[in-house]
Amino acid sequence: MNFDLNSLITGTLDKGSKNLITDVDGVLVGHSTISLGEIQTGVTVLLPHGGDIFHQKYLAASHVINGFGKSIGLIQVDELGTIETPIVLTNTLSIGTAVDAIIKYMLKNNLDIADKTGTVNPLVLECNDGKINNIREQKIEHKHIYEAINNAKSHFMQGAIGAGRGMRCHGIKGGIGSSSRRFKIFKKDYTIGSLVLSNHGRFEDLIINGQKVSDVFKDPNTFEAEKEKGSIIVILATDAPLTERQIKRVCKRAVAGLSRTGSFIGNGSGEIVLAFSTAHKINHYQKELDSIKFLPDNELDIIFKATAETVHESVLNSLFYAETVTGKDNYRCVCLNDLIKK
Amino acid sequence: MNFDLNSLITGTLDKGSKNLITDVDGVLVGHSTISLGEIQTGVTVLLPHGGDIFHQKYLAASHVINGFGKSIGLIQVDELGTIETPIVLTNTLSIGTAVDAIIKYMLKNNLDIADKTGTVNPLVLECNDGKINNIREQKIEHKHIYEAINNAKSHFMQGAIGAGRGMRCHGIKGGIGSSSRRFKIFKKDYTIGSLVLSNHGRFEDLIINGQKVSDVFKDPNTFEAEKEKGSIIVILATDAPLTERQIKRVCKRAVAGLSRTGSFIGNGSGEIVLAFSTAHKINHYQKELDSIKFLPDNELDIIFKATAETVHESVLNSLFYAETVTGKDNYRCVCLNDLIKK
Amino acid sequence: MNFDLNSLITGTLDKGSKNLITDVDGVLVGHSTISLGEIQTGVTVLLPHGGDIFHQKYLAASHVINGFGKSIGLIQVDELGTIETPIVLTNTLSIGTAVDAIIKYMLKNNLDIADKTGTVNPLVLECNDGKINNIREQKIEHKHIYEAINNAKSHFMQGAIGAGRGMRCHGIKGGIGSSSRRFKIFKKDYTIGSLVLSNHGRFEDLIINGQKVSDVFKDPNTFEAEKEKGSIIVILATDAPLTERQIKRVCKRAVAGLSRTGSFIGNGSGEIVLAFSTAHKINHYQKELDSIKFLPDNELDIIFKATAETVHESVLNSLFYAETVTGKDNYRCVCLNDLIKK
Amino acid sequence: MNFDLNSLITGTLDKGSKNLITDVDGVLVGHSTISLGEIQTGVTVLLPHGGDIFHQKYLAASHVINGFGKSIGLIQVDELGTIETPIVLTNTLSIGTAVDAIIKYMLKNNLDIADKTGTVNPLVLECNDGKINNIREQKIEHKHIYEAINNAKSHFMQGAIGAGRGMRCHGIKGGIGSSSRRFKIFKKDYTIGSLVLSNHGRFEDLIINGQKVSDVFKDPNTFEAEKEKGSIIVILATDAPLTERQIKRVCKRAVAGLSRTGSFIGNGSGEIVLAFSTAHKINHYQKELDSIKFLPDNELDIIFKATAETVHESVLNSLFYAETVTGKDNYRCVCLNDLIKK
Repeated sequence: MNFDLNSLITGTLDKGSKNLITDVDGVLVGHSTISLGEIQTGVTVLLPHGGDIFHQKYLAASHVINGFGKSIGLIQVDELGTIETPIVLTNTLSIGTAVDAIIKYMLKNNLDIADKTGTVNPLVLECNDGKINNIREQKIEHKHIYEAINNAKSHFMQGAIGAGRGMRCHGIKGGIGSSSRRFKIFKKDYTIGSLVLSNHGRFEDLIINGQKVSDVFKDPNTFEAEKEKGSIIVILATDAPLTERQIKRVCKRAVAGLSRTGSFIGNGSGEIVLAFSTAHKINHYQKELDSIKFLPDNELDIIFKATAETVHESVLNSLFYAETVTGKDNYRCVCLNDLIKK
Repeated sequence: MNFDLNSLITGTLDKGSKNLITDVDGVLVGHSTISLGEIQTGVTVLLPHGGDIFHQKYLAASHVINGFGKSIGLIQVDELGTIETPIVLTNTLSIGTAVDAIIKYMLKNNLDIADKTGTVNPLVLECNDGKINNIREQKIEHKHIYEAINNAKSHFMQGAIGAGRGMRCHGIKGGIGSSSRRFKIFKKDYTIGSLVLSNHGRFEDLIINGQKVSDVFKDPNTFEAEKEKGSIIVILATDAPLTERQIKRVCKRAVAGLSRTGSFIGNGSGEIVLAFSTAHKINHYQKELDSIKFLPDNELDIIFKATAETVHESVLNSLFYAETVTGKDNYRCVCLNDLIKK
Repeated sequence: MNFDLNSLITGTLDKGSKNLITDVDGVLVGHSTISLGEIQTGVTVLLPHGGDIFHQKYLAASHVINGFGKSIGLIQVDELGTIETPIVLTNTLSIGTAVDAIIKYMLKNNLDIADKTGTVNPLVLECNDGKINNIREQKIEHKHIYEAINNAKSHFMQGAIGAGRGMRCHGIKGGIGSSSRRFKIFKKDYTIGSLVLSNHGRFEDLIINGQKVSDVFKDPNTFEAEKEKGSIIVILATDAPLTERQIKRVCKRAVAGLSRTGSFIGNGSGEIVLAFSTAHKINHYQKELDSIKFLPDNELDIIFKATAETVHESVLNSLFYAETVTGKDNYRCVCLNDLIKK
Repeated sequence: MNFDLNSLITGTLDKGSKNLITDVDGVLVGHSTISLGEIQTGVTVLLPHGGDIFHQKYLAASHVINGFGKSIGLIQVDELGTIETPIVLTNTLSIGTAVDAIIKYMLKNNLDIADKTGTVNPLVLECNDGKINNIREQKIEHKHIYEAINNAKSHFMQGAIGAGRGMRCHGIKGGIGSSSRRFKIFKKDYTIGSLVLSNHGRFEDLIINGQKVSDVFKDPNTFEAEKEKGSIIVILATDAPLTERQIKRVCKRAVAGLSRTGSFIGNGSGEIVLAFSTAHKINHYQKELDSIKFLPDNELDIIFKATAETVHESVLNSLFYAETVTGKDNYRCVCLNDLIKK
């Protein structure tokens, strides 16, 4: 039996030109990676658009699949329906540093924040990379967040990079994965893209192309069967015109994609989804009625299907693009390609 | 000390011309009342607009303050952000009858429902009038729901009428209360109105005009101090242009109005809020992008304040307009006016 | 290629002796079916235990995967954490009748309801069987609910029976499916069982044993590709000792099982989960501190995995046990076995 | 007219001996305050108990009244039903620093965190003190959090101290307020206490003892009428035995207390409630069934009433104990006592 990784089966819809979340126009992604012995960690930043996100916000929503996690900023996203900062992904014990870095970044670039207007809502999402990375050392500094911001572009690497450096998914090397889908509604083209930070699942449950990987390959881990833990973060971006309520409905479909790799949402797996639409900008100082266009709910099935497909593929891509990494306690976390080659 | 019921203090904003929820253009309210010995109950129906509500829906949202209640239809309201039927208020044990009556009414008037298109989401909200009404007799029939629908108009009575016939609030006679507030945003006039079915609270907690009623008047009830139970239903209508998320935010401010009469949201008090905006109609068969206008969240304070005021006044109006009713077990539920006159 | 329906692959855990939700001790299920030309519908009732459920409640919780549905009673389940009536499944337009039937049943069997104590919270969940059944005729009467209650036993049939008679799942005949899983925690045996009313999904998305059915068999439907709609109801029962919060966590894992058949939670698919634990009874008239045992959250992974597996298998069983049914407009809904035999 | 501040009317229940949240046995509160010209800010820390909170957790829940806020850690509290760290209150732009300080504190004191076991969930709640404090300077450092922890004791000061130093409530000086209530259920004594960080409301809405303060005293502010913004954080502690679901129900009653001072939950007012019960400790390494006692929901009314009362009084205490503070831009924020003396 052979996994043909060139034909990962994740659905039938067309992919975007880059097959990345950045196929949604304006979205940029950057990494900062630390790889030094037992320190294997990093930061990934997503810029919803390249301009002034605080004053030109996007409609957004979040969904907590399993709340065993420490993500920051989601309460306000759901209350106000907007995002107003870069989105930072990093390891669990660096969230304080990341929040502070983003606050400083926003204060520096927006002199009105916390002076002429209110404060700002930093968005930091995390997974625990403590199996590969010596997370207790808290090696992420402000400069890594700024480096990731400065690196942000529309082409970016996947796998064991940025926040994904120390992540582990289904018992093998995980990390950053991305993909996109295209679809038509009322004859108009739209794109939805996803970016995941994959750190969840057990080897014995992993399914690729409808096949249990553990039926074909031996568990590369020597420690005994472990609990599903880790977590996964899913970011979704689309240019389809949707209300905040509809964006939340899109968030809720990510779980269908996650489930297709065999996950059952373990107790310890913090699973968080954050989505936004680039179809409309909300002016921070809006002084008249605003107006948005949106699709009828009755037409959303194709977006929901695309969401499941792109999230499914992003998880697989996080495995596919990862390299084998050796970190803390000399644990060597084998990547999918090395597993198969063996 | 004297309660001047002609100057109920419930805030500073202007009231609508009728001081009823029907000050929001198009909203209609009708009652059907049964008053026969120990049967003291009824039905109140609110028509969001007088036309074809199934095919021309309104944006809507709900909020559960305390879920000790059996209201029906709210799950879909929050998922899809719309209402598509009349809103029925009645006693707890008649909800099955009311749901079936509304389904039949909708089927009769919309031949496409459950044939060319999906089904329909009936909205039935309830309180337990079992202290005054022999609720176990389930005397509400389909005809009462239809009578209330047919009676619906822009002027309607408050107090011990319709669904409010057997309700009891803060130990005295409650029932249907309504009021409205007007406000300006960006120099444009808007109205928000509320209708309550009041059946909650204890006599000892009731506050009117900043004064504890029980400090001035004796508890008219001879049975021992009881648990806060009963429930309250709050319906809000506004012509302000709001998204579903914003309408939900408005719902959440109703509790500020309820608290002003001394309630603390008792365990047994099912407290449910349902709100809609008349600013935009959602076409059931929408076949292109829809578009809505909406106010910036930063301008909503005046609506939130108006919500608290109108809900506060609606509860007081439900007491003020009620008459003394004698029902089950010859229990005579004294109304506010009779309490004060004594 | 061949689907070996004798070896449906849905995981690795042991099944209960009957492989039904009734493997959880005390749970009973009964059906009432109408099959008369274009009327193909029915009622399925689950009794959480055979005794006095109103006065001896079970801890429970619900989860709304997609709220495009009209299910009744969930608000109170989540507020109070208990169920206190039989659980009724039927078609969408019969929910009023079912609610009223259950209210009358509870009033008759509990003279204290709505007299010496509060009212009662009926639980009615539904799917729209309008493709096969002339649902507009509303042929369910009170007697069908009572018949299903009276029929309730620990062995029951699956497929096109009871509430499942007119349901359609992934473009073929669906309906009632059930299964169970056994697992050990702290060396003690527990069981979780599920019962589904399957009415969701499209033919082109159906996956069995990791294989797309539409890659092997032709879509038996002649009408053009349709929207995912329909809905699915999932009932879960377990004898594992859990708090209400933990039961809600179990509910949230059902979606992992649903996703394994290829569903992506379509817009029109009302997907609702209701779960309860039989480990502890809550006395309605409790007059002292109550006490419950519960498992540490850290041990729940095996329950979550079992939930995904049993829900997955219950959906497949609803297809496997169904027979081909011809109903409204002479539409002949082919069952899985007939599809494969062709 | 005269506000007799010695007889603040906030209900009828008995108060605890200290009338502080620390009347709940084991709860400790400490402050760290910075008062230097335009820097008027600080940190308040609540220790749920004085021991090892990570390994001996308390059951807990949260409730978001209005999510315009950046509080951290609530997602996991609601998922797992426990708190496992000190609770930190500070200004909005210092949340990153506070999170990092708590992570370091927990890592230092618990060598198993992020090594032998999972990570830790820091709890940081905030209000924006930017009217009085030059919040953009971010003057809170790690040492302030540790100082507050080290200062924690069962007697503590209220008003313009700790995190309350720069807060402003109803247009006058707010900050830290606390109080407690005692009640009996099944003949046993229990206590509930609250601690608020008050920073919400407008002068024109403030009600004390049933009287509008603005009807008697002139608005001390010279700037034009402003939006309700700011926020309020409410922490509740009780020794009553409750499940996580019941603790969440208690959280939801805080709003009744808040509303009694005239608040209507403004758009910009992030209002967050966090509550815990000290009746049971959850062992982090629990290796057998756990067991908890809990009160029947039917007995919770007295707790709900106590919650409304203590939250109401805590807000008033935050005003009553505050001193006048002059800070940023030489703005002099008058305290209640100075307002009345004038």
